[in-house]
Amino acid sequence: MPKAAILTLLTDFGDRDVYVGAMKGAIACIAPHLNAIDLTHHIPPQDIAAASYQLATAYRYFPRGTVHVAVVDPGVGTSRLPVAIAISEGFLVGPDNGIFSGVLARSPAIAAVELDKLKYWRDRAASTTFHGRDIFAPVGAHLAAGATLDRVGTPVELDTLQLLPQLPLEQTDGGWIGSIQAIDRFGNLIANLAGERIESSSWVVIIGNERVPGCRTYGDRPAGELLALVGSDGWIEIAVNGGSARDRLHARRGDLVELRFVPPS
Amino acid sequence: MPKAAILTLLTDFGDRDVYVGAMKGAIACIAPHLNAIDLTHHIPPQDIAAASYQLATAYRYFPRGTVHVAVVDPGVGTSRLPVAIAISEGFLVGPDNGIFSGVLARSPAIAAVELDKLKYWRDRAASTTFHGRDIFAPVGAHLAAGATLDRVGTPVELDTLQLLPQLPLEQTDGGWIGSIQAIDRFGNLIANLAGERIESSSWVVIIGNERVPGCRTYGDRPAGELLALVGSDGWIEIAVNGGSARDRLHARRGDLVELRFVPPS
Amino acid sequence: MPKAAILTLLTDFGDRDVYVGAMKGAIACIAPHLNAIDLTHHIPPQDIAAASYQLATAYRYFPRGTVHVAVVDPGVGTSRLPVAIAISEGFLVGPDNGIFSGVLARSPAIAAVELDKLKYWRDRAASTTFHGRDIFAPVGAHLAAGATLDRVGTPVELDTLQLLPQLPLEQTDGGWIGSIQAIDRFGNLIANLAGERIESSSWVVIIGNERVPGCRTYGDRPAGELLALVGSDGWIEIAVNGGSARDRLHARRGDLVELRFVPPS
Repeated sequence: MPKAAILTLLTDFGDRDVYVGAMKGAIACIAPHLNAIDLTHHIPPQDIAAASYQLATAYRYFPRGTVHVAVVDPGVGTSRLPVAIAISEGFLVGPDNGIFSGVLARSPAIAAVELDKLKYWRDRAASTTFHGRDIFAPVGAHLAAGATLDRVGTPVELDTLQLLPQLPLEQTDGGWIGSIQAIDRFGNLIANLAGERIESSSWVVIIGNERVPGCRTYGDRPAGELLALVGSDGWIEIAVNGGSARDRLHARRGDLVELRFVPPS
Repeated sequence: MPKAAILTLLTDFGDRDVYVGAMKGAIACIAPHLNAIDLTHHIPPQDIAAASYQLATAYRYFPRGTVHVAVVDPGVGTSRLPVAIAISEGFLVGPDNGIFSGVLARSPAIAAVELDKLKYWRDRAASTTFHGRDIFAPVGAHLAAGATLDRVGTPVELDTLQLLPQLPLEQTDGGWIGSIQAIDRFGNLIANLAGERIESSSWVVIIGNERVPGCRTYGDRPAGELLALVGSDGWIEIAVNGGSARDRLHARRGDLVELRFVPPS
Repeated sequence: MPKAAILTLLTDFGDRDVYVGAMKGAIACIAPHLNAIDLTHHIPPQDIAAASYQLATAYRYFPRGTVHVAVVDPGVGTSRLPVAIAISEGFLVGPDNGIFSGVLARSPAIAAVELDKLKYWRDRAASTTFHGRDIFAPVGAHLAAGATLDRVGTPVELDTLQLLPQLPLEQTDGGWIGSIQAIDRFGNLIANLAGERIESSSWVVIIGNERVPGCRTYGDRPAGELLALVGSDGWIEIAVNGGSARDRLHARRGDLVELRFVPPS
């Protein structure tokens, strides 16, 4: 019997309640020795865009075949579909509300199903308020244990999958204008500008009134100074060496950021 | 060799310190590949009632035979007994201070022992301040690995097990009066009123000056509106679609809540 | 094939972002069924001294051979070395910036290597900003899976390993003067005074203007009263029974604490 694949969990359930614990119990009932890996449970409540960003950041580092269960689900119990989606790297399981937009922008869907097979739900029934425990975790466990996509649901057209609107991004004369898509624990501001867009060995980032020099790593600038660099997931980010760019710049998600190439002088 | 059972952990140790890590180390010394599942470590410090509620919510979703180690233990090192309790679904391990009241109200104790067998403790000795690491986690690991209850301790009478006082709950002419037993991350107010108490297709919940209509799921009311429903663990709860009932109502644990059946008009 | 050893993770990455998740993905790519145990990810950002204390508290409770990956790494991408260190209890993997000082004060290094073998990195390359994911987690996984220290790097002299300056500690006429090295979730103040330094059956601790009696456990003093005891990891700590010594005394890390032996009267 082959060992189960990896399964990850990403939710907005926090860690004060036992909602995540109940999901892990539901998984253990199906695949007792499957080790569910927490990506984060601290997505701000009902913030689908934040969940989409975080999942798109994490999924690429897992082995092929990993099942990612993601539950930020303000529409639970309404008409939004519960789905599972196959991508080349593995599977996505959760509500069809745009939460998979970030991943699908990087890895297109290969197939998708609506999760309508009660046999793969917890106790063959679902509450109207907690599909994470009753549908998504059990189906994820079955997929990790080897069930195929067509067994756990009924095919849906790929072009019906919900996608979030994209953040502004446009090319300029000497660079690009984008926006902050996420701010991490260290106060680093992560723009929707991929590092591959940098076409010059010398570049700056403009945010508000600040002109921030492009660097290679945090230590390339003195402690306390603003800098920009290509972060660990490939996006351009603005940081302060030993400090917080969020606090320094009072920045928020959605703020505009300009990448400007600097011609050799 | 059969694989070990599931083991869960619930404490008030938080996640800033390495107390939970030390418990997992103690477990790994006994059962290296037992995967301890965190229910929550964010019980408010020394809040036995909150721990009792959360454990009673989570334990039902785990496979038969699961060992639940729960440690909220203000009396550590005093005369309160360290115990392990068998219920039909598995085992409970922790201090005998009422922390298992919620579970035992749903699943009566079958047998219980005082944990007085040093052979099953960490290094056959215990600190006076951290029985979670030195007694409860090791005994839990031994139980998960197959030790029987009578080997890890000495039987105690079931009617000596400590139980917390119950929250007020009484029947009225046209319904029930209970109280809020928990408030979750989303600000949902969870009453000690089981959904099975609803005897009418139409019902409301009264809290303070508000009359809140009974619904099926969050989306049954417009965004921002108060609603009541039977939550995912079977209790009646008060919520705001897309918001927080706690913030709206300034509600606290213990506040009175009335369930009233609405006669057909 | 023997099962992998235990691997632990300790970082300042928090739980809002998926940085820890990405590390676990990198581990799963090498050792899919290795169960990484979280010690804590809530070290205050870039606080190497706090990380050193917490790791030194936790590592002793794990089985021999455990691999501890610790990443608080403000100098990532600069000249500080990535290292792995063998101690008699297992392995330490992380930046050579003093983060292992606390462990090494208890368990001397036996051997150490600079992590310069790209074969053991993620995808044989490393970002300049996230060695936790690209070097430390993968090398830790290889060590847990059985790789030897000399395969994953090039030996470095043990006396070149970075150590943090030690907190003040000196003997007095009738005791010792030390300082608070950590404050835990419960507000307990943990001094750098080992319990073995107590040479008298009667002792007190002086902090600020308070004279705090030495006890055996929290319940030895009435609720709300200050007390000192030898904590679960062997250090003298100051606590309030049922309360927070931090809040009572407005204490901070580094505050001076005096242990005084009380002569029989």
